[in-house]
Amino acid sequence: MPIPKPQLYPPFNIVRLSHVELLVTDLGKSRAFYVDTLGLQVTDETSDVIYLRALEERGHHCIVLRKAAAGEARHLGFKVFDEEDLDRAAAFFGGRELPVEWVERPYQGKTFQTRDPQGIPLEFYCKMDRLPPIHQQYALYKGVKPLRIDHFNVFSQNVDEAVAFYNEIGFRVTEYTEDEESGRLWAAWAHRKGGVHDIAFTNGRGPRLHHTAFWVPTPLAIIDLLDLMSTTGWLQNIERGPGRHGISNAFFLYVRDPDGHRIEIYCSDYQTVDPDLEPIKWDLKDPQRQTLWGAPAPRSWFHEGSLFSGAELTDSDLAAQPIIAP
Amino acid sequence: MPIPKPQLYPPFNIVRLSHVELLVTDLGKSRAFYVDTLGLQVTDETSDVIYLRALEERGHHCIVLRKAAAGEARHLGFKVFDEEDLDRAAAFFGGRELPVEWVERPYQGKTFQTRDPQGIPLEFYCKMDRLPPIHQQYALYKGVKPLRIDHFNVFSQNVDEAVAFYNEIGFRVTEYTEDEESGRLWAAWAHRKGGVHDIAFTNGRGPRLHHTAFWVPTPLAIIDLLDLMSTTGWLQNIERGPGRHGISNAFFLYVRDPDGHRIEIYCSDYQTVDPDLEPIKWDLKDPQRQTLWGAPAPRSWFHEGSLFSGAELTDSDLAAQPIIAP
Amino acid sequence: MPIPKPQLYPPFNIVRLSHVELLVTDLGKSRAFYVDTLGLQVTDETSDVIYLRALEERGHHCIVLRKAAAGEARHLGFKVFDEEDLDRAAAFFGGRELPVEWVERPYQGKTFQTRDPQGIPLEFYCKMDRLPPIHQQYALYKGVKPLRIDHFNVFSQNVDEAVAFYNEIGFRVTEYTEDEESGRLWAAWAHRKGGVHDIAFTNGRGPRLHHTAFWVPTPLAIIDLLDLMSTTGWLQNIERGPGRHGISNAFFLYVRDPDGHRIEIYCSDYQTVDPDLEPIKWDLKDPQRQTLWGAPAPRSWFHEGSLFSGAELTDSDLAAQPIIAP
Amino acid sequence: MPIPKPQLYPPFNIVRLSHVELLVTDLGKSRAFYVDTLGLQVTDETSDVIYLRALEERGHHCIVLRKAAAGEARHLGFKVFDEEDLDRAAAFFGGRELPVEWVERPYQGKTFQTRDPQGIPLEFYCKMDRLPPIHQQYALYKGVKPLRIDHFNVFSQNVDEAVAFYNEIGFRVTEYTEDEESGRLWAAWAHRKGGVHDIAFTNGRGPRLHHTAFWVPTPLAIIDLLDLMSTTGWLQNIERGPGRHGISNAFFLYVRDPDGHRIEIYCSDYQTVDPDLEPIKWDLKDPQRQTLWGAPAPRSWFHEGSLFSGAELTDSDLAAQPIIAP
Repeated sequence: MPIPKPQLYPPFNIVRLSHVELLVTDLGKSRAFYVDTLGLQVTDETSDVIYLRALEERGHHCIVLRKAAAGEARHLGFKVFDEEDLDRAAAFFGGRELPVEWVERPYQGKTFQTRDPQGIPLEFYCKMDRLPPIHQQYALYKGVKPLRIDHFNVFSQNVDEAVAFYNEIGFRVTEYTEDEESGRLWAAWAHRKGGVHDIAFTNGRGPRLHHTAFWVPTPLAIIDLLDLMSTTGWLQNIERGPGRHGISNAFFLYVRDPDGHRIEIYCSDYQTVDPDLEPIKWDLKDPQRQTLWGAPAPRSWFHEGSLFSGAELTDSDLAAQPIIAP
Repeated sequence: MPIPKPQLYPPFNIVRLSHVELLVTDLGKSRAFYVDTLGLQVTDETSDVIYLRALEERGHHCIVLRKAAAGEARHLGFKVFDEEDLDRAAAFFGGRELPVEWVERPYQGKTFQTRDPQGIPLEFYCKMDRLPPIHQQYALYKGVKPLRIDHFNVFSQNVDEAVAFYNEIGFRVTEYTEDEESGRLWAAWAHRKGGVHDIAFTNGRGPRLHHTAFWVPTPLAIIDLLDLMSTTGWLQNIERGPGRHGISNAFFLYVRDPDGHRIEIYCSDYQTVDPDLEPIKWDLKDPQRQTLWGAPAPRSWFHEGSLFSGAELTDSDLAAQPIIAP
Repeated sequence: MPIPKPQLYPPFNIVRLSHVELLVTDLGKSRAFYVDTLGLQVTDETSDVIYLRALEERGHHCIVLRKAAAGEARHLGFKVFDEEDLDRAAAFFGGRELPVEWVERPYQGKTFQTRDPQGIPLEFYCKMDRLPPIHQQYALYKGVKPLRIDHFNVFSQNVDEAVAFYNEIGFRVTEYTEDEESGRLWAAWAHRKGGVHDIAFTNGRGPRLHHTAFWVPTPLAIIDLLDLMSTTGWLQNIERGPGRHGISNAFFLYVRDPDGHRIEIYCSDYQTVDPDLEPIKWDLKDPQRQTLWGAPAPRSWFHEGSLFSGAELTDSDLAAQPIIAP
Repeated sequence: MPIPKPQLYPPFNIVRLSHVELLVTDLGKSRAFYVDTLGLQVTDETSDVIYLRALEERGHHCIVLRKAAAGEARHLGFKVFDEEDLDRAAAFFGGRELPVEWVERPYQGKTFQTRDPQGIPLEFYCKMDRLPPIHQQYALYKGVKPLRIDHFNVFSQNVDEAVAFYNEIGFRVTEYTEDEESGRLWAAWAHRKGGVHDIAFTNGRGPRLHHTAFWVPTPLAIIDLLDLMSTTGWLQNIERGPGRHGISNAFFLYVRDPDGHRIEIYCSDYQTVDPDLEPIKWDLKDPQRQTLWGAPAPRSWFHEGSLFSGAELTDSDLAAQPIIAP
């Protein structure tokens, strides 16, 4: 199935991905990972929950860590342009017979939660508490100096269908991998905010969250994080990289949090604001699409991901999971 | 005058700044500067004109260098979303009794030229020839590794009026300097594409083009350019920097081309896509707004700029030009 | 066997490693690799031989590439302090009944060749033609911006014996790997010039040259080389890295030339001039000694190396070669 | 006067510069500067004195901060090769009728203090307490990530004489500035440890300490320090830079401690171990010798320095001080 023509006048205006809520089993360990090691900033915390923002963000949170019995991804959050867009979004999802529930979320204005057709829990809002800028408080820059949340990547059982749906709500595909033989999409990267992606879909047993990514200033910040993690007890949490992706051209590193949630550290992709930007097509047989420099990803990277709350898969589902690439 | 409330539903949709045409007196020298030294890529050239693009751009040109008797800036180019926006833009300018002339431009589709109320020559289009991506042809990366055009900065006689006009057509102010005593704007940075600015307005004898900026991957690319320019005969063309701007937080360098057109090399500002992003206010008396690290800019930086074609100022105008800051 | 006490007053004064002569089967391909890709500078070339220097070197050559029927390492070159040291060195090797032959070498003064006890061909000299500095001719900086030759690494059948010999002639061990069970040295790094090493010895079927290393200014130069090689036809020549070594603490990349000679790109080890610097001991079972960040090296890295001229091993020798590490 | 021929067999073997003792008026403020801001590591502290080392050093201290009524430099420390060299050094200074006094210094073995002919207080030792390596404890890397002390720079009233003396004790000149008209040396850089310098002499009212320099891993560490200092109350302590020196080719920044002692942050000079390395001559009229990129140094940089204890100058001496360069 070919990449669909971009929906230039979508039914509602999503500004960007905004935040993710992750369920974690040990808040203290998670704090040590996200705050002390990665360098995210705490904006609120209780015994049950920690709210974090990155250094150039003014919204209250990009990650919510919530204590729970098992590690899961609770929902992916998106910011829409204004309240009319929010209502249009709710109407759109409702019109597709997808669940729409208006919820109270601390630090957020009107918010509704829903699921996309593959079952991924989403939430939409237009207003979140704004905090004073800290991007010039350089004493706060620690760890990998995370500047902002950049994107989500999810395992999808049917990437063609996932892309068709997100295309309809305004995401534009920038790069994709096609299986030349079947003509089916193997993976696709789609954006709202003007980078390579706000969300990507990768073939695999799903829906599961493959990773959440943070933008950092330079590759040297990533090298610093590797040095720090490998000498402070986090060696086993380094999963893949550093390297350059063929797709997106970004310099990357993948690390795992204490519950196995995967975080990508990411920089230097490119600007994609032109509505006539042609998507770049990659062949599934080209290994440089994954790592421009040729080094293969480890097996865990292809197989493991975070379950979404309420979208649990059976063990046999997971066992049946295809390998994403040769 | 306070910063106006952003016009969230502007009369037409400008995607981003796109290109500038610079009149130059010696194409060979200009080629040595822009191509051999900065590392921009030639996409077409004749004995009269050179078209250039930066490394991640797919549009045909971001700078047009045209041979002429004197160095001037001929027009600033902007890309609009689609043809309907282009027509709406033409109607908007016509409705303001500003000149609208449809013109033929090589490699561009339908294009009209006009002037803003302060006399700056502008051109708008929606389609430009698209070229194959070269951002992964790393053998082409030379000089400062320019990735994309980032913004224009102009001297305005009345920044309040300039901001009011550009606000009306959808530009959103991200940062500004206010003269606390008079309450007037001294300078303002306004964006369309999600960075700190597509265009900035600075108090000074105008309209004149202060500089055109290019985005580069890291501060080290800027250090490389300084080393290269200072050992290949371009020492006198280094004007200011390297440094970090307080405003925009960008790492910067200012260089001058053989005709004195000023080019900023720029990286690491921040994402501004949120429609509720609060502008950051700076006091005219705070020297860190210009250089976070405290080093003053040279006198030329405050006084010199490129005349716009058809908007010439008299010598006495220029002599009377105020100093932008103490 | 414990690390021997450093010989602080050795029989002659070696200043540093100096150069290597590599036999290559296709000079044009080798030139494309060393000059066009790595960025070394040609100081002389004929149809049979190319002389190269790195950017901060003033000696005439650090690599000599000579056309031959098969890829081999012809000799490792060392610079001694003055002519008296050269004579003392010749006397020392002669006294050990090692072959000493005075030879004519273009661009070098008095030079003798010999072999160390394990059969590695060496040459010693004190004067080489000096060339004008080019380290501030930044237009010459290309590829990985190689600044100077840094060290050799060889496979040795008996690392204890190799270390004992080189210790006697003044090399001081900075780091080493010991097999805790047998008490034998597995590998050792030894210096003359004040870095972690001029030469290292690694357990393996030998003598063979494991690699020759070049010092570069920053990790970003290595990332640039990876981007360049992977998009200009050299993808298969990238063997290992980038990464940080535990031993030496250096940031590294290993690439292979067209004949399979291995080149390490290396930066950021530490200063070792103190005569009382304690060697750092690593356990053979600690995988971080090789890669601080945990990623394993590929099999080829442990098994493959360049034969030294006149020290050929049989195929069965090579087949019998032990794996250097679990 | 021409640069003297290097003394290849000096009367005693100095390994490297080692440490400086600075008198400071407020230990708490100095600690905030050297420890919290620059990132040096405390190895001992009492209410009167703080000992510091840099991250790759294993000797106990490279800076001693001692509480005193006025900011002064108490002595410059050098490490010699072994105890015989120490005795030879004492004999050498005594033979020149320079004062030699054996002193007790905490954490150092046998140590004597003396003065060079221009009155600079020096101390020599061969053994200092060795500490465990911390260069791979990356959690300790803060501030500018100082790796090691690199050099001293002093104002000398007669650079020719200073160079002649230090040449005699084994320092080799790597670069120098000559006043073409008078034929006198204006400044000279001389090394023992294989970099551009362990000590430099600059024409000026002296003897005074111009600065002490620390080596850092990359220019980005210097940019990080600028960001940190300019947003944590140290803006006024940034004096000059960042820039690239013509002489030494190093990337540099000059900052001032709370008592005005000047610290240079320095990286990327070159290796100078060859005994036949030709010194590079610069013309006093070439402004690129100071800053390759052309930016002038501020007036304070030419005029201000730390007095050495016991070598005080009168105010009128200081008032008479010549400007070092146009």
